[in-house]
Amino acid sequence: MPKSIAAFGEVMMRLQVPGYKLLSQGSTLNYSFSGTGVNVTAALARFGHTGLLVSTLPENPIGDAALSYLQKLGITTSFIRRDGKYVGMYVLENGFGARPSRVTYTNRLESSFNTAAEGTYDFNAIVKQVDIVHFCGITLAMNDTVRHLMKTLAKAVKENGGTIVFDCNYRPSLWGEAGYIKAKPHYEEMLQLADIVMMNEMDAQFVLNLKTEKNDRSEQLKELIPIVAKTYNISVIAGTHRTINGDNTHSLQGFIFKNQAFHFSKTLSFSVYDRIGAGDAYSSGIIHGEMEGFPPEKTVEFAAAAGMLAHTIAGDTPMSTEKDILRAMTESVGDIER
Amino acid sequence: MPKSIAAFGEVMMRLQVPGYKLLSQGSTLNYSFSGTGVNVTAALARFGHTGLLVSTLPENPIGDAALSYLQKLGITTSFIRRDGKYVGMYVLENGFGARPSRVTYTNRLESSFNTAAEGTYDFNAIVKQVDIVHFCGITLAMNDTVRHLMKTLAKAVKENGGTIVFDCNYRPSLWGEAGYIKAKPHYEEMLQLADIVMMNEMDAQFVLNLKTEKNDRSEQLKELIPIVAKTYNISVIAGTHRTINGDNTHSLQGFIFKNQAFHFSKTLSFSVYDRIGAGDAYSSGIIHGEMEGFPPEKTVEFAAAAGMLAHTIAGDTPMSTEKDILRAMTESVGDIER
Amino acid sequence: MPKSIAAFGEVMMRLQVPGYKLLSQGSTLNYSFSGTGVNVTAALARFGHTGLLVSTLPENPIGDAALSYLQKLGITTSFIRRDGKYVGMYVLENGFGARPSRVTYTNRLESSFNTAAEGTYDFNAIVKQVDIVHFCGITLAMNDTVRHLMKTLAKAVKENGGTIVFDCNYRPSLWGEAGYIKAKPHYEEMLQLADIVMMNEMDAQFVLNLKTEKNDRSEQLKELIPIVAKTYNISVIAGTHRTINGDNTHSLQGFIFKNQAFHFSKTLSFSVYDRIGAGDAYSSGIIHGEMEGFPPEKTVEFAAAAGMLAHTIAGDTPMSTEKDILRAMTESVGDIER
Amino acid sequence: MPKSIAAFGEVMMRLQVPGYKLLSQGSTLNYSFSGTGVNVTAALARFGHTGLLVSTLPENPIGDAALSYLQKLGITTSFIRRDGKYVGMYVLENGFGARPSRVTYTNRLESSFNTAAEGTYDFNAIVKQVDIVHFCGITLAMNDTVRHLMKTLAKAVKENGGTIVFDCNYRPSLWGEAGYIKAKPHYEEMLQLADIVMMNEMDAQFVLNLKTEKNDRSEQLKELIPIVAKTYNISVIAGTHRTINGDNTHSLQGFIFKNQAFHFSKTLSFSVYDRIGAGDAYSSGIIHGEMEGFPPEKTVEFAAAAGMLAHTIAGDTPMSTEKDILRAMTESVGDIER
Amino acid sequence: MPKSIAAFGEVMMRLQVPGYKLLSQGSTLNYSFSGTGVNVTAALARFGHTGLLVSTLPENPIGDAALSYLQKLGITTSFIRRDGKYVGMYVLENGFGARPSRVTYTNRLESSFNTAAEGTYDFNAIVKQVDIVHFCGITLAMNDTVRHLMKTLAKAVKENGGTIVFDCNYRPSLWGEAGYIKAKPHYEEMLQLADIVMMNEMDAQFVLNLKTEKNDRSEQLKELIPIVAKTYNISVIAGTHRTINGDNTHSLQGFIFKNQAFHFSKTLSFSVYDRIGAGDAYSSGIIHGEMEGFPPEKTVEFAAAAGMLAHTIAGDTPMSTEKDILRAMTESVGDIER
Amino acid sequence: MPKSIAAFGEVMMRLQVPGYKLLSQGSTLNYSFSGTGVNVTAALARFGHTGLLVSTLPENPIGDAALSYLQKLGITTSFIRRDGKYVGMYVLENGFGARPSRVTYTNRLESSFNTAAEGTYDFNAIVKQVDIVHFCGITLAMNDTVRHLMKTLAKAVKENGGTIVFDCNYRPSLWGEAGYIKAKPHYEEMLQLADIVMMNEMDAQFVLNLKTEKNDRSEQLKELIPIVAKTYNISVIAGTHRTINGDNTHSLQGFIFKNQAFHFSKTLSFSVYDRIGAGDAYSSGIIHGEMEGFPPEKTVEFAAAAGMLAHTIAGDTPMSTEKDILRAMTESVGDIER
Repeated sequence: MPKSIAAFGEVMMRLQVPGYKLLSQGSTLNYSFSGTGVNVTAALARFGHTGLLVSTLPENPIGDAALSYLQKLGITTSFIRRDGKYVGMYVLENGFGARPSRVTYTNRLESSFNTAAEGTYDFNAIVKQVDIVHFCGITLAMNDTVRHLMKTLAKAVKENGGTIVFDCNYRPSLWGEAGYIKAKPHYEEMLQLADIVMMNEMDAQFVLNLKTEKNDRSEQLKELIPIVAKTYNISVIAGTHRTINGDNTHSLQGFIFKNQAFHFSKTLSFSVYDRIGAGDAYSSGIIHGEMEGFPPEKTVEFAAAAGMLAHTIAGDTPMSTEKDILRAMTESVGDIER
Repeated sequence: MPKSIAAFGEVMMRLQVPGYKLLSQGSTLNYSFSGTGVNVTAALARFGHTGLLVSTLPENPIGDAALSYLQKLGITTSFIRRDGKYVGMYVLENGFGARPSRVTYTNRLESSFNTAAEGTYDFNAIVKQVDIVHFCGITLAMNDTVRHLMKTLAKAVKENGGTIVFDCNYRPSLWGEAGYIKAKPHYEEMLQLADIVMMNEMDAQFVLNLKTEKNDRSEQLKELIPIVAKTYNISVIAGTHRTINGDNTHSLQGFIFKNQAFHFSKTLSFSVYDRIGAGDAYSSGIIHGEMEGFPPEKTVEFAAAAGMLAHTIAGDTPMSTEKDILRAMTESVGDIER
Repeated sequence: MPKSIAAFGEVMMRLQVPGYKLLSQGSTLNYSFSGTGVNVTAALARFGHTGLLVSTLPENPIGDAALSYLQKLGITTSFIRRDGKYVGMYVLENGFGARPSRVTYTNRLESSFNTAAEGTYDFNAIVKQVDIVHFCGITLAMNDTVRHLMKTLAKAVKENGGTIVFDCNYRPSLWGEAGYIKAKPHYEEMLQLADIVMMNEMDAQFVLNLKTEKNDRSEQLKELIPIVAKTYNISVIAGTHRTINGDNTHSLQGFIFKNQAFHFSKTLSFSVYDRIGAGDAYSSGIIHGEMEGFPPEKTVEFAAAAGMLAHTIAGDTPMSTEKDILRAMTESVGDIER
Repeated sequence: MPKSIAAFGEVMMRLQVPGYKLLSQGSTLNYSFSGTGVNVTAALARFGHTGLLVSTLPENPIGDAALSYLQKLGITTSFIRRDGKYVGMYVLENGFGARPSRVTYTNRLESSFNTAAEGTYDFNAIVKQVDIVHFCGITLAMNDTVRHLMKTLAKAVKENGGTIVFDCNYRPSLWGEAGYIKAKPHYEEMLQLADIVMMNEMDAQFVLNLKTEKNDRSEQLKELIPIVAKTYNISVIAGTHRTINGDNTHSLQGFIFKNQAFHFSKTLSFSVYDRIGAGDAYSSGIIHGEMEGFPPEKTVEFAAAAGMLAHTIAGDTPMSTEKDILRAMTESVGDIER
Repeated sequence: MPKSIAAFGEVMMRLQVPGYKLLSQGSTLNYSFSGTGVNVTAALARFGHTGLLVSTLPENPIGDAALSYLQKLGITTSFIRRDGKYVGMYVLENGFGARPSRVTYTNRLESSFNTAAEGTYDFNAIVKQVDIVHFCGITLAMNDTVRHLMKTLAKAVKENGGTIVFDCNYRPSLWGEAGYIKAKPHYEEMLQLADIVMMNEMDAQFVLNLKTEKNDRSEQLKELIPIVAKTYNISVIAGTHRTINGDNTHSLQGFIFKNQAFHFSKTLSFSVYDRIGAGDAYSSGIIHGEMEGFPPEKTVEFAAAAGMLAHTIAGDTPMSTEKDILRAMTESVGDIER
Repeated sequence: MPKSIAAFGEVMMRLQVPGYKLLSQGSTLNYSFSGTGVNVTAALARFGHTGLLVSTLPENPIGDAALSYLQKLGITTSFIRRDGKYVGMYVLENGFGARPSRVTYTNRLESSFNTAAEGTYDFNAIVKQVDIVHFCGITLAMNDTVRHLMKTLAKAVKENGGTIVFDCNYRPSLWGEAGYIKAKPHYEEMLQLADIVMMNEMDAQFVLNLKTEKNDRSEQLKELIPIVAKTYNISVIAGTHRTINGDNTHSLQGFIFKNQAFHFSKTLSFSVYDRIGAGDAYSSGIIHGEMEGFPPEKTVEFAAAAGMLAHTIAGDTPMSTEKDILRAMTESVGDIER
């Protein structure tokens, strides 16, 4: 049964140099609008749910363009405020083979979302209308006001009986020096509120400062994730292990930890067209599986396939339907569909 | 010695989303004009023969554009009638890795070609001017009038001493439910007229309803093709086996059955840029080999290399010369030619 | 106060040759989705109303792309059914100066909208949710089923107390030979139901077969429009007179006839970037003025300015806000806004 | 009745900076292939005649691309030799308003056409197959071998009873210093052979060194053209007067002098999209009128309208049909054709 | 004799929606880098001088791209520091006819240039190497540190015997509320240092708060500019009057006030391709004329023609050579240059 | 410590068909300017040195565009003369998988560089300003005047105490029939002057006609290179062995021979985006290592990584910084940098 899912997060403008040129070689940029919240709500809207974004965009042509773009993705925009002055931007230069992709940010801290004041969102209206709210660690890294808004909304959801999804998504460059120490209390606060958490053993060790004697990351995972689930009383923890292979393909294996048990997806290996946002596709798959009541072993395969397909789609935002993903779970790559 | 080869078939407008976007993500389309008859006559024109298309295009800007495009490909257009209202179209969304390509058709049944009435083509003039005529199973799937025109032309060619090529090319989506049963009598009629036939063991089993105890497709091929050749009195039967590999490369092996003997090409493995129309390149290679009097073991290698190269060419229509193909048969992939 | 406005009409795919090439010269097309109903509801959504489209799109990638495009325009798509097989298309070649633009249609009669059966739309739900429904003469030209659906919906709106807008929009090529005679009874039926009608003296003479001794079109207008309003009991009749000037600029004067009085806008002269759909912008301006309770002399100026601006916007669909139009009504063209 | 018309001339590759950038600002070029002979034969092919080009192209990918392009234009390419090494090229930067367009040539003297040796073309075969041959002053400016080939072909046409068209087309930059003195004997030789000549009073004064006391160019024309016609025994002389107006539109008036009488077209004023090759459209109109037996007053209007429309078409080569031109002669610019 | 001219100013990234789409309609942007200082030094470099920019760019791919772009323009970049984090950006949507262009800025106050600290530039080295330094009112609007740096550099130039150019360039949106009052003391400080000033009667009235009884702007100019020159001891004051005509052409008349006398250029009327930066072309013309010792009546015609041509060039930055401008001063618009 | 490095060589215009179309299929070209000297000086400028090109470009828009492009690459252009008429050009059609790339040249022998007369360059000024001059075998293949200029400059460098780099770069198509015999004396003359030489065992055998009994190319290398070094008194000889693998990746191993010892890099395997110019990246790495005083085992790894990265960069010219290359030497391919 379709649900109402909101995400709280920033909309960013992605400026991508076409093909494999560097910014200093080109003269045109492809633009689109994305962000973790955008990606997750768009993906869930494509699965048949109502995906609402809670965010702020300026009342100017850039804000108008962002809004149109979100509408095109099928996102319900009734909770998007128009205020402030700017939209955060980033420039993406595609890597090729031995040359990695590069992302260069403009000043996102002055964006409409990150300068929205306390009390500007009507959280009461939001929590009444939605079943689930998604938050992420990128938003948590912004500033005190945003963090406070985020926690306030999370508490309101909790009190209203809604489900909270939290994607740890720790980005070192956003937290700066001594970032783990700064981040830890905020992460802990969110984890205590969360029902479904996206993370892996790296987050457990670096952000939560848990210790392990194990060297193998699978073993670290199996040791640490149950501790996190127990400590913060989390129903579902899910995440992935990614490997970048010598031939530039990536391999991805998903896990889900629920009811004291781990379930792992097959390890999928695939060519990568556009890597950004693929983690959000995985999260969306987990959320969809949980909302639809899939058994966890199906949920994790579904999420992994959703993640794999998102690597083959242009842009940050997943575009696959449930049917596309179910087929990718069962069939080998086929010839042209006609 | 160059020959005159006609093909009877529809010209379609191909609308391709550039790069790897979905139609719902993009805003531009690349267009070109193709079709099995277009591809085969263009390929043969590039080998030095005269390639004539027998078809109908509307007297409007889309028809004009199609005609210009065929001229550019080197096709002789003197047998193309201008009549009717529409050109069939299809939208192509390129797949990437784990995500397959998708083809979406517009209503081709109302096209100029498919609504051309009995008696509108001057078949007498055509058969006097050409040595060979190519037909295909896609045309056979259209409607009764088209089928009747097709068979009438084939009989006229036969009576005039010309050679008939028939490519089985069974497309399930065109025949609809119980398609094999509907198709069988029409296929049998064409096979009885044909001298050179493109097919493999799948067509023999599904379209002609032949039975085999074998499970391996090579063994099925070796059992069934001689039966078909004998039953319908066909001089040459040729076709391919295609495998899609885990790393998204394709492998192709061609066969030719002639004078009671099979000849197989090497199995070629290669990266794929544009798969559509590659089967027509293989057919063109077989026709060229037969017309030039190549020994069958050379013909099948030539056709397989022609098919392989067609996968590396943008658009449906093969663009390789005889020289390009002969080089690809003997040399490994080289550095830049300069 | 924002209203809910629905339009009943077909969504078409516009395939435009970029720049000033002919289709036979180019290799790419820009695509978008439009139609009178699309244009009117999108324009009204941009004015702050809820614009709903009542239509049918196929469940395939072309239908998906159309739906995304409508969402991007801000159209509420909850009354769009997914059924049938095709989307009507047209190719647009831009004219330049002495060379006129050309539009070439594909077979729209097989489209999802034009093949939707009786009883497929939930007209009850629609009429309950909307204040106004817009219909147009293009839809009326399609076929008997579509005409019947259109009239059924119009009657239901009427019975439910809603307002009916009818845009005469007679297209000779759609009605074929003896078109005026075929069209007249259907137009009369719609006029009898309509509250607000878009037409001018040409429609009165040719479609409704009214006679006048006058030669000047303004005088014809002043004589015939009051007769039409009276005969069919229409509250508001509005329309335009267009002149194409020697320097390729267009001049446009709008009129509105309401409460037995004519009001004319200033004659606006302007350069034209994209002419298609500008009539729908004018209609939207009239509807907005009526809904907002503008005095008719303001409504007609607003509609004319909306029409003028739509000629400066890429694509069929108007993109101007109320603020943009109000400024264009009062200010001369200014320097860059920064 | 359709005729066979050949032109003898070079095929050049046009490299155009898109939009209004300078070459030093851009990064892409649009390419096409043209030349006076290409333009004239393509225009006449579009009018229903057989247009054959007599030229030479290299056996390499640039030559292949040129050949494909000529085929697309509908030119019959059976008299195009494949030999030599290069294709002449020119870069076009579009002007805008007060900034003129610029053309920069690469080294055309080393082109396949300009290095073709004596005796390489089968002029006997050509003159037997064609009714008319077109030559132009640009070819005459190349080098001695080309000039000799040109005159040899012209004499062969003459002897065979064919018609010779000669377009004076004097280009100062090609003849260099003291160009008029160098050029005069060659022009006189061609004029003595020619039946239809494209020129105006400028050519008469500067190339043929005729003197006049008149200051007005119309009066100069009326005095000098009859002298030229008589001196060289020319049946038809035609040409144009062009004015560039302050608003960047151009005005064009055509004339034809035949049977001792002048006929002038209306003066046409129009916006210009692509000026290059418009003179060839005018020539093609004169040739078509003469071949079809139009009265000269119709021929000159047809040619002027053909010239006008060529300014609205992308690329050097005219694309209008006879029907397009006849309509432009009688109708004012209309609204969209749909 | 070529001079060394530096400009002190910000480099901005211009993101332009191609053609005439709105940002909410498009998917690609053209990018370039500009700014008043960039435009002036690039224009002067094209006239044969050494043009140096004094600015700061971040050490990241956006800064690298900006630097490459400036090098391409011929700007000497040895005084460009690499520091800070951001480049200011603006989005440009081209207007068409009745629809004005729109510029939307991102947060330029956080740019590398606007966050550069006191003492970071080596002003000593700069003033020793240059003859002239250009400043503008946009820079003056930024913040106190930038203003202080600007004045410090100006004073150092003065002390070193260099020439100071100051372009008033008052932008209301940058100064905010009560902007004129805030701006006045800073403008006065710069005017007291300046030798050559770009301004007109608007600046005198609004920024300097001078009063006049005259209504006509020409008369206001003639009254107020001499007062300004005298008050602040300015050698040369120059500026323009612009009119936007009904047919979307612009008219421009330049003036120069020097040695107590006014000189006016012809009023030039022209079509506009890209208006931004044309004022900087005018300034560059004035500076060039002064540096070369042109008589003022030639300087003002040169500057006006430079300004006119800059409207026909893509991008903010003037690209015309001295030769281009001299020709535009004397010749009417000609046919293609070839 | 940064050095001044000049290269003597031609600037060519590269015209690349975008994507994987053939020239006969496309309509646009991407253009850029390159050449061995361009690539080497640009690469070294990116490493922090001053890279000067000694060349000639025409005083026309193509020359202007080339000059702007070189400036953009960071090349110091003060030694570029403006003279002559043409720029050499080549068309590049990208291969795909089994279909090799094709390069087609226009007539470069008439280029400004190749027609520059004796005595036109101010070699005295050049040698005083630079530490190192780079020459290559492509220049040596042009004509006697160019060869003489090249040797004259090399001798002047030598006399002035500068370092000479010579890249053998033998291109069979440029030397024509009996090319090795023609080339040998010129190569020997350059080798006698050179300090650092780029070559491998193929050059030793074919150009220098050295004999070996060995069959394996590594053994041939180890036998012949020391002989060459000794014979011509060369300090450093470096080069690569390239293998094209079945999966279209390339493998590259670099070597350096210095102080009687060989050092080999790791064999690097990688995907190839743009192969042209990668050899120049390798040379630049060797030159940089030598100038910076790297130990030879680091120099050869650095050069090999520089070569590898150049295959991943669009265009002929390397764009990597020293930091990019050092990271590629030590890290495996990573995820997005953000």
